[in-house]
Amino acid sequence: MSKSKPTLPRGTRDFGPEVSAKRTYIIDKIKQNFIKYGFSQLETPSMENLSVLTGKYGDEGDQLLYKILNSGDYLSKTNPSDYELGSKHLTNKIADKGLRYDLTVPFARYVVMNQHEISFPFKRFQIQPVWRADRPQKGRYREFYQCDADIIGSRGIWNEAELTLLFNDVFNDLGLEDYVIKINHREILFMLAEYVELKDQAVAFCAEIDKLDKIGEERVIENVLVLGGDNVKMREVMELLTSNSREHLIEKVSAIDPGNKGVKEIIQYFEALDQFADKNLKIELDLSLARGLSYYTGMIYEVKPTSVQMGSICGGGRYDNLTGVFGLQGISGIGISFGLDRIYDVMEELDLFPEEITQRLEVLIVHFSESNLLHSQTVVMKLREAGIKADLYPESDKIKKQFNYADKIQTPFTLIIGDDEVKTGKFMLKDMKSGNQKPMTLDEIIREFKG
Amino acid sequence: MSKSKPTLPRGTRDFGPEVSAKRTYIIDKIKQNFIKYGFSQLETPSMENLSVLTGKYGDEGDQLLYKILNSGDYLSKTNPSDYELGSKHLTNKIADKGLRYDLTVPFARYVVMNQHEISFPFKRFQIQPVWRADRPQKGRYREFYQCDADIIGSRGIWNEAELTLLFNDVFNDLGLEDYVIKINHREILFMLAEYVELKDQAVAFCAEIDKLDKIGEERVIENVLVLGGDNVKMREVMELLTSNSREHLIEKVSAIDPGNKGVKEIIQYFEALDQFADKNLKIELDLSLARGLSYYTGMIYEVKPTSVQMGSICGGGRYDNLTGVFGLQGISGIGISFGLDRIYDVMEELDLFPEEITQRLEVLIVHFSESNLLHSQTVVMKLREAGIKADLYPESDKIKKQFNYADKIQTPFTLIIGDDEVKTGKFMLKDMKSGNQKPMTLDEIIREFKG
Repeated sequence: MSKSKPTLPRGTRDFGPEVSAKRTYIIDKIKQNFIKYGFSQLETPSMENLSVLTGKYGDEGDQLLYKILNSGDYLSKTNPSDYELGSKHLTNKIADKGLRYDLTVPFARYVVMNQHEISFPFKRFQIQPVWRADRPQKGRYREFYQCDADIIGSRGIWNEAELTLLFNDVFNDLGLEDYVIKINHREILFMLAEYVELKDQAVAFCAEIDKLDKIGEERVIENVLVLGGDNVKMREVMELLTSNSREHLIEKVSAIDPGNKGVKEIIQYFEALDQFADKNLKIELDLSLARGLSYYTGMIYEVKPTSVQMGSICGGGRYDNLTGVFGLQGISGIGISFGLDRIYDVMEELDLFPEEITQRLEVLIVHFSESNLLHSQTVVMKLREAGIKADLYPESDKIKKQFNYADKIQTPFTLIIGDDEVKTGKFMLKDMKSGNQKPMTLDEIIREFKG
Repeated sequence: MSKSKPTLPRGTRDFGPEVSAKRTYIIDKIKQNFIKYGFSQLETPSMENLSVLTGKYGDEGDQLLYKILNSGDYLSKTNPSDYELGSKHLTNKIADKGLRYDLTVPFARYVVMNQHEISFPFKRFQIQPVWRADRPQKGRYREFYQCDADIIGSRGIWNEAELTLLFNDVFNDLGLEDYVIKINHREILFMLAEYVELKDQAVAFCAEIDKLDKIGEERVIENVLVLGGDNVKMREVMELLTSNSREHLIEKVSAIDPGNKGVKEIIQYFEALDQFADKNLKIELDLSLARGLSYYTGMIYEVKPTSVQMGSICGGGRYDNLTGVFGLQGISGIGISFGLDRIYDVMEELDLFPEEITQRLEVLIVHFSESNLLHSQTVVMKLREAGIKADLYPESDKIKKQFNYADKIQTPFTLIIGDDEVKTGKFMLKDMKSGNQKPMTLDEIIREFKG
């Protein structure tokens, strides 16, 4: 047994009481809204067979999968040549399982395995950790939570609108006002690619558009021209990419191709959401939004904070073939994901966490003697049953030591119990900040906290 | 990419909507009570350094640890002789991390790493999965949740009493009445060992006592005699091991050694709990309760269901040296653990889950046309905002198809929206079981569900 000071694996974190309470606060708000919108919870195992995970995230993803060593004498089915052939080869022989890399592939696996029991449209949410053997850096961890909601088996554009309302409700509940929901549609991007005469290079065109924030208009235009795009048309398109007037954009893209599926869906989407004008939805049609993930085929979303320097805190979009990799074709769906760690950082920076959520106690009971301790036990239980966060210093230590503890844990109030208090039924409630104290009955105290 | 039907690793489970809702129900009740009693949440990473985990669970435990293959070219720091020396040797070279085996060792690690920030007594709870490479069988999984609460840095017996009240409150909240909280004290067991003249073989004596349920009185006595125990005294002790009269037991063990620490603490424990007679606590002093884990040093608990054939659903006890393995001595504590899977099974067998927790929807809105769909969107949002679990069939499919879906997902009510309904503001609410339906305004519908 090592007696040296223990450590945590790099890129992983303990969440102590305060951080854990704040994370739980965010997760609860997200979860409540998922349920409100009719999503059901799915939980999948942390370990998946590597046959399920491998090949789903590209070569880089395969590298970042955590692989679990088979149990027992895992070398028994290998021979020295397996060792000679190197790590990659040997892994196939000694590791059958890996840790979940995201929540989408396990969801797809679940759908395929349970396709005959599921009624479509199927709305599932999933809030679980995922693991990636990435190089740890600020804001990037090797274990982190994803909070996903997906609707599969329905192509209706109400789904797109509904998920936007869900974003709005979650951030409302969290008290986070400074954000924008950016939307775009892959079909519009493809149309623009065609317009600048890069029909066959639509993906490369999108990749250049995606860099607009980082490299600026002129360099994007240059790159598109290098791809073979039309100069005049690309300058027209650039005006669209940098506009945020919904009406202007819809007018212009409708003019390019009024039959475009993306344009139609965007119009339908706004028709649905315009019914909720009282909600002041913070939506921005941003034709420069491309999003990296190649499996999106329809509308795409990104939520960005506006008063804090940070990347997107949510993302999502429509995809056409969730389960194709497992041989089940034609399952269209739309999904969104909340970035817990980033939302946490934004909330922290804007000081949006309510104070009471990290407060372990409202009142700590301290007492003068062993016999007072006994009586104090009935008092603490009465307070707890009244819904007050109360605790009792559990030993008859000197009163000074008990107050030291009260200071350290920063309890806002103490309740002092001695022989007189037990006799009269009036206890001293002390405000630890002001030092003020007054004798009160238990009923008065309960009213003070709960009234 | 494999197109064959994907599978789950053996011993792991998906939790679909219904099971997940039921598990969440249990976890929420446990968690609410942990918080009510003043515990704060701790979350630790799934991965720990193997230097932290190894050697803490005995040789068998070390075998059952899941080890994670180092990332990248993990063989680069090995040579052929490492391969020749076999699996156990090679593991040390190619795996630095493992999956959490329980919540106690990570907690101890956390306490040692944060000892200067923690104020003692420290009450923490932790609800997270753990992993064991055990042979899967009925009721035994390779990934399962533990729900632990510990109070460390306090020896006061109020802690023991408080955790008993916590058991009571959790099972009350779950509606589970048929259980008994068995308690015993290691010091009493050691006293009995001494009494039968097996002072130096107290651990072996306890191990025999532990078998009473399985092998019966006579064989336990035989085994104790083989150890060298006194026949007459062992028969006296057997009478105590099979009695469940608290007064009788306390009288008898007090007579053996009135100064015994265990006896004193048990008396103090009941003195505290007798103040809560109105709670009808289901406590049984059972001197045959031994519990396997050798690190317990004081009071021990076990909760057993009484109307279902099953092992213990909770356990716990006092220990004296939580963090000694990491070099920090003298941290005494007491902890309890709820067995989520077994509690689930008991609840299921006794049919104790409330129906509404697995109900995704209270009402599904179906509609006749595209334009009705648009109006339905405002209706579903109004219902949701009134706290009703409502959803909307998201596409303008034939009404028959929409009703088929309503049947499949077993929604108790549907709300039918057509042109007339939009005009009059009266919608048809249909009870899907009885088939009864009547036209109602939105306000009437909300009152119907929430009133």
